[in-house]
Amino acid sequence: MSKTIILNNRPVGMPTLDNFKFISEEIKSLNKGEIKVQAKYVSVDPYLRGRMSASKSYVAPFEVGKPITSGIVAEVITSENENFAVGDFISGILDWKEEQILTAETLKEIRKVDGSKIPLSAYLGVVGMTGLTAYLGLTQIGKPQKGETLLVSGAAGAVGSIVGQIGKILGLRVVGIAGSDEKVSLLKSEFGYDEGINYNSTEDMQSAIHKACPDGVDIYFDNVGGSISDAVLFSINKFARIIICGAISMYNETSLPTGISVQPFLVKNSALMQGFIVSNYQEKFPEAAKQLGTWLAENKLTYRETIVEGFDNIPQAFLDLFEGKNKGKMIVKV
Amino acid sequence: MSKTIILNNRPVGMPTLDNFKFISEEIKSLNKGEIKVQAKYVSVDPYLRGRMSASKSYVAPFEVGKPITSGIVAEVITSENENFAVGDFISGILDWKEEQILTAETLKEIRKVDGSKIPLSAYLGVVGMTGLTAYLGLTQIGKPQKGETLLVSGAAGAVGSIVGQIGKILGLRVVGIAGSDEKVSLLKSEFGYDEGINYNSTEDMQSAIHKACPDGVDIYFDNVGGSISDAVLFSINKFARIIICGAISMYNETSLPTGISVQPFLVKNSALMQGFIVSNYQEKFPEAAKQLGTWLAENKLTYRETIVEGFDNIPQAFLDLFEGKNKGKMIVKV
Repeated sequence: MSKTIILNNRPVGMPTLDNFKFISEEIKSLNKGEIKVQAKYVSVDPYLRGRMSASKSYVAPFEVGKPITSGIVAEVITSENENFAVGDFISGILDWKEEQILTAETLKEIRKVDGSKIPLSAYLGVVGMTGLTAYLGLTQIGKPQKGETLLVSGAAGAVGSIVGQIGKILGLRVVGIAGSDEKVSLLKSEFGYDEGINYNSTEDMQSAIHKACPDGVDIYFDNVGGSISDAVLFSINKFARIIICGAISMYNETSLPTGISVQPFLVKNSALMQGFIVSNYQEKFPEAAKQLGTWLAENKLTYRETIVEGFDNIPQAFLDLFEGKNKGKMIVKV
Repeated sequence: MSKTIILNNRPVGMPTLDNFKFISEEIKSLNKGEIKVQAKYVSVDPYLRGRMSASKSYVAPFEVGKPITSGIVAEVITSENENFAVGDFISGILDWKEEQILTAETLKEIRKVDGSKIPLSAYLGVVGMTGLTAYLGLTQIGKPQKGETLLVSGAAGAVGSIVGQIGKILGLRVVGIAGSDEKVSLLKSEFGYDEGINYNSTEDMQSAIHKACPDGVDIYFDNVGGSISDAVLFSINKFARIIICGAISMYNETSLPTGISVQPFLVKNSALMQGFIVSNYQEKFPEAAKQLGTWLAENKLTYRETIVEGFDNIPQAFLDLFEGKNKGKMIVKV
């Protein structure tokens, strides 16, 4: 038997613990080519909120009564597949189950990971989807040029904390927006940001952004949307690039979010705004992962994790993302 | 003496005739290298509204008390420059003056035009900035692929009427949005649009767009902004490209325009939205002008002009743009 978390019902607005249900599922015996794995680290991410709704997005919605899935690092505990030995670690999009069987078909989407040089949890963060998102979003859409100003929202979060560091490596001036003084000081002390703005204690975000970005904003890496992103529009430069990586402030709105119309700002500045989804850039993963690994090994890149212990706490850890309780990557250690 | 139209004061909201003032200016005698020209055709364009405001946009604002400028075709009536003979026609951004002197310096920005094969007024339209805007906006940002669906707002206007035709030449399904039944029938009968929507008689624009674009919208060429463009968001496809060429519905707003937040739509669809200003693509003008001229000669491209007669009617013709009184390009014949 394996503990499993399924979607109990779809949230309206802010998700709650009631949207999730713990059930116990039998585990069958292995067929040839299959392996059984035990979850070690589970990633919780804001984008999962989108999949909890019924409406089609870039990934199919979760089904009510079926397991939630996310990025998971797991250990092989039984194997009927010669490519996977007991004790190997793997990473991929798996079910929220303590233990589960992976078929030969599923294994095509799975990669082996090595915890000896890089901590296992980092495969869900800095050298996993999070790092790839930061690196590919910034380079593929942002097209950074040395000396430009990069502004990042959700700057102390999983993606934002890495975007800022990569920006510094690439020779940019980097400014971050986060939700507490503690996070803002972390931006500067740990992630190399030149300047930080606490949006919760700042009344006039437009002025604060102007002041923190005296040469204007060339690249805006947007993880939050909403009124913060509206305020940024007043500081964008000609040919600015706005990477829409996430819109966490809008995910739980029950009516259609509205705000300042971006069109006049875009046309006035010949600026670009583009939605970024890392899975569209699969062919660039190997090169990007290698680059991130190199920077990590050279200590040019650091990362922060907020680790929550215990399989039972996965739903609460997910909910905490919307309260900004994480610094860096939120991960559940099973 | 030459009649001249200057900016009398800056408009707040919708411009009025009072924003313009007719004065009489003395014309000096020519220095070496200079020519005197007489305006023949004057272009009035929505973007001029932006230059009437004090705030900096992609071109400097007009100065109060100084002449308004726009695209003009003029005839050389006196010449002290060996490259320009009396009777030659030229086109460029000139003052709103019946007659004016062009210095050797100004002449660098001026091109000679030939009215024998292409009507002179067309140099302000289909083979001028208007055509270049349509062609380069659609190809450079829209990156059209045969079989895709192109939706155009302001479709019966100067740029829109050409965008649709180019879309058809490039093998797209083309749908246009315009403001009257007469314009919508013009879209289909004259400009080759597959389908048209009259936004003034349509209550539910979202449904109308869904119905007219059953395969969704791959490219949206936006000339209007506002609620029409909000409605389009619900039909965009994955990897959609939205060209923000103009936002005429927003130019006269006295408060900051607001609307549906685009970020969730862009991220969900990995879609792109980019402000387009033709002057950023100068290096592509020769090739683009040649292509437009070829299509025109081959009768693949047609155009419509709304011609207003008389220098004194330039301001009113400009104001009429915001009432949608033009079909195709609005031009004043002096």
